[in-house]
Amino acid sequence: MRRFVIGKAKSLLNPSYHSQNHTLLRPLSASQSRFLSSTSVLDSPSTSSASSMYPPVSLDTINPKVLQCEYAVRGEIVTLAQRLQDELKAKPGSQPFEEILYCNIGNPQSLGQQPITFFREVLALCDHPAILDKSETQGLFSADAIERAWQVLDQIPGRATGAYSHSQGIKGLRDTIAAGIEARDGFPANPNDIFLTDGASPAVHMMMQLLISSEKDGILCPIPQYPLYSASIALHGGSLVPYYLDEATGWGLEISELKKQLEDAKSKGITVRALVVINPGNPTGQVLAEDNQKAIVEFCKQEGLVLLADEVYQENVYVPEKKFHSFKKISRSMGYGEEDICLVSFQSVSKGYYGECGKRGGYMEVTGFSPEVREQIYKVASVNLCSNISGQILASLVMSPPKVGDESYESYSAEKEGILSSLARRAKTLEDAFNNLEGVTCNKAEGAMYLFPRIRLPQKAIKAAEAAKKAPDAFYCQRLLNATGIVFVPGSGFRQVPGTWHFRCTILPQENKIPAIVSRLTEFHKSFMDEFRD
Amino acid sequence: MRRFVIGKAKSLLNPSYHSQNHTLLRPLSASQSRFLSSTSVLDSPSTSSASSMYPPVSLDTINPKVLQCEYAVRGEIVTLAQRLQDELKAKPGSQPFEEILYCNIGNPQSLGQQPITFFREVLALCDHPAILDKSETQGLFSADAIERAWQVLDQIPGRATGAYSHSQGIKGLRDTIAAGIEARDGFPANPNDIFLTDGASPAVHMMMQLLISSEKDGILCPIPQYPLYSASIALHGGSLVPYYLDEATGWGLEISELKKQLEDAKSKGITVRALVVINPGNPTGQVLAEDNQKAIVEFCKQEGLVLLADEVYQENVYVPEKKFHSFKKISRSMGYGEEDICLVSFQSVSKGYYGECGKRGGYMEVTGFSPEVREQIYKVASVNLCSNISGQILASLVMSPPKVGDESYESYSAEKEGILSSLARRAKTLEDAFNNLEGVTCNKAEGAMYLFPRIRLPQKAIKAAEAAKKAPDAFYCQRLLNATGIVFVPGSGFRQVPGTWHFRCTILPQENKIPAIVSRLTEFHKSFMDEFRD
Repeated sequence: MRRFVIGKAKSLLNPSYHSQNHTLLRPLSASQSRFLSSTSVLDSPSTSSASSMYPPVSLDTINPKVLQCEYAVRGEIVTLAQRLQDELKAKPGSQPFEEILYCNIGNPQSLGQQPITFFREVLALCDHPAILDKSETQGLFSADAIERAWQVLDQIPGRATGAYSHSQGIKGLRDTIAAGIEARDGFPANPNDIFLTDGASPAVHMMMQLLISSEKDGILCPIPQYPLYSASIALHGGSLVPYYLDEATGWGLEISELKKQLEDAKSKGITVRALVVINPGNPTGQVLAEDNQKAIVEFCKQEGLVLLADEVYQENVYVPEKKFHSFKKISRSMGYGEEDICLVSFQSVSKGYYGECGKRGGYMEVTGFSPEVREQIYKVASVNLCSNISGQILASLVMSPPKVGDESYESYSAEKEGILSSLARRAKTLEDAFNNLEGVTCNKAEGAMYLFPRIRLPQKAIKAAEAAKKAPDAFYCQRLLNATGIVFVPGSGFRQVPGTWHFRCTILPQENKIPAIVSRLTEFHKSFMDEFRD
Repeated sequence: MRRFVIGKAKSLLNPSYHSQNHTLLRPLSASQSRFLSSTSVLDSPSTSSASSMYPPVSLDTINPKVLQCEYAVRGEIVTLAQRLQDELKAKPGSQPFEEILYCNIGNPQSLGQQPITFFREVLALCDHPAILDKSETQGLFSADAIERAWQVLDQIPGRATGAYSHSQGIKGLRDTIAAGIEARDGFPANPNDIFLTDGASPAVHMMMQLLISSEKDGILCPIPQYPLYSASIALHGGSLVPYYLDEATGWGLEISELKKQLEDAKSKGITVRALVVINPGNPTGQVLAEDNQKAIVEFCKQEGLVLLADEVYQENVYVPEKKFHSFKKISRSMGYGEEDICLVSFQSVSKGYYGECGKRGGYMEVTGFSPEVREQIYKVASVNLCSNISGQILASLVMSPPKVGDESYESYSAEKEGILSSLARRAKTLEDAFNNLEGVTCNKAEGAMYLFPRIRLPQKAIKAAEAAKKAPDAFYCQRLLNATGIVFVPGSGFRQVPGTWHFRCTILPQENKIPAIVSRLTEFHKSFMDEFRD
């Protein structure tokens, strides 16, 4: 009985606690007991093993891979930011700042970036095709958007935008995407190699699910990396084999480092299955040089690795000296054909100049796998039936935007260039600001949407972080958030060379917010360093 | 050298075959060799272990769980149907039928069902809010759709439909859904318990990922079942613990059967974690009686099982004597609160009278888990960032459709009732047709979108199937497809009592197609039975 009292008390303190004897003391109603078959709860053999019964689900019983998985971009610091925002809303003036400045996630439209008009016109018309024939529609939508909507609808069997599609996505839209890839690369693309997905993340999971059987299967990943990769590898129970990007050479990717890590993994009994390359880089912002890409392809070819190319930032290059080249283009230009190398390229509508994160559109182009393995990829895609059709349509639109001569072309180009040139300016301003801070160095954001500055923290700050049971960079980011409302993600969420500390900052806040970010950050940093200077 | 020749020959026969020495004979260009680090391909130690190198990915090296997974709804029979359709298109008249009649998948709009106008109006306006203020818009859209679009946009931070949302979905939309659940059940619902997902499938995967650590973790599943469950359990490496629905009593769910299977699993060292119930049933079409649901809740409570309630067909009930009750309503009406039972309810915009499969919207309502476990579910949701916003909006709309007095109410109701009453008529016509076939019996479709008739095949047909290396029901379905263009899914894809044979037929073909389906099926069946009669 004493046990029950304790249980009761615990359940008052924590509503999730289930007393083991709780139900035994609750009288069963007639209607309840009627439907229990011969063995009632009081004499059921399973009640004897009560300890395994309540609570039915605990951290001890769930999949340990879920526990191991981490996802910093939406982690602790973001939870704190949301709490502060709620407090500000409930009690304006309660914080030393007026608004939260989210620099933690590549989510342009949440920070005020407007969608590209042409894309949204086509999506709206495809959502409600009944208005396509109406005269008022001519006044509301551009002529080429109306024409494009008809084209897209004609690519969809029965014009049914509300139907499940082929598991790889609507064939006609894949034709458009393949044509876009061909135009980009100058090499053929096959619509049957395209798998449309709800953003790039499910595509990455699908490949990890295919390639990873156990912790003996390794995936070479850049460090620092986008935490989708570490999370996905953890969820599927594989081993992340790290290779370090060289911060001193602008986050250079050295083949010697790949080889070293591969051999090291082999010596531990790990079979490396694939190499992840993020180009342009997240969180590093580097754009790989063509020669470097060739060496990477050659390495994968020689070592029999699948090359998983995260190319979602292909439209985000800000410096004239660098250009995006897809790994498929690189490998074909080296003379490697379909049968020579297993290559998966991930693309998303969430990034680029369009930044349509909420639409969850994307695709992977899968080449070099045998028909039997392709069939298995198709099966995994089938289990979720298909990706959302609006996202599929948008993925086809970003690969075939308005062309010279189309009614929307000028306004489309102006919107696109406006966004990209502004992003380039923001990247430069923030980079300069970081490099002006005591103890901070920051490589150029050649592409993507991030800066990943390194911060050399005083020993006193590192000790204070230890005392607060936080990683030093998390400690810094939390102090920054509490003082200024600015949200950076600690570098430890992306992994980094041990003993170094970083944070990731997006270049996405609107341009008129950047001066405030720079001045608040500069002021905070100065007082932080003054407080902790050794 | 001989080895190379064989390799070359093989590679001609099979483009996926990679000769082990292939690259060694390909001269490296200067630019290629320059970027290989010190150990070149010719002396690299890894070339010595060549046998593990090519092809890098094969059925022997991929995740065996992927190989084990099966998904009949999009399996072999559908591939055959697609091929026949292509042949018909390329060469009209090449088949003994003029069109493929897809009765294999719950995909209403692919078969001509029109979307609900109000829902699409709101979606289009949210996709392109720039037109909300324009005068032409008043002429094109109903007033309440315009008003609702404003309301929805006001629920979205920054009105940014192109932004990633909270990982559980937009809070304001979850408020609407929770209010809809409350109105449905008469018991409170908490918006923080709602996780918006890209259809119900990813939600099911998320729960399986959480609950399954190894093959020692069991999930009780009805047989016959929807193959999403068997596929998801296989992909996550768990054990499907079957419980058989009783066909003789209209696919009754007996608690004694649950107990028996649970004990049987325990005796094999399997810890059963959860019970899947599909209500209304897929593929069986049964609607559970309230008393039966109470007994199921009691069973889960006593045995400490998570109740995974697939309630995606909650709007699809066709018989006056049955009514849908959510398991949450049932458990609350029994006096079980949040802390008494772990309950997950899955809902989707793909089913109901709306049938918006392509939108990939849905949610799960998660109650009874401890805060620590809830945090883990949230983390898994976060790794994919969020579900698509159009799907999120639509999920809120189906839970709060137009009300009496709204401008759209009458047309909305007419569309809804038109679809549901037509589905009820189609279900009855097909049920009668099946019951008129020699050796076929078919339970009533009380709900959902399917009939699952049992077919007693002559021994001669079973022998012929064996000779063709097919399951007898797959043999029948393939013959049917080749003769008539009608696509059914063999019962073996859903599992069934060993030695019994079934197929699943949707009730979704448009009403004007039903007579042709019935007459072609009847004619085929007669000739099939004549051919194989013992």
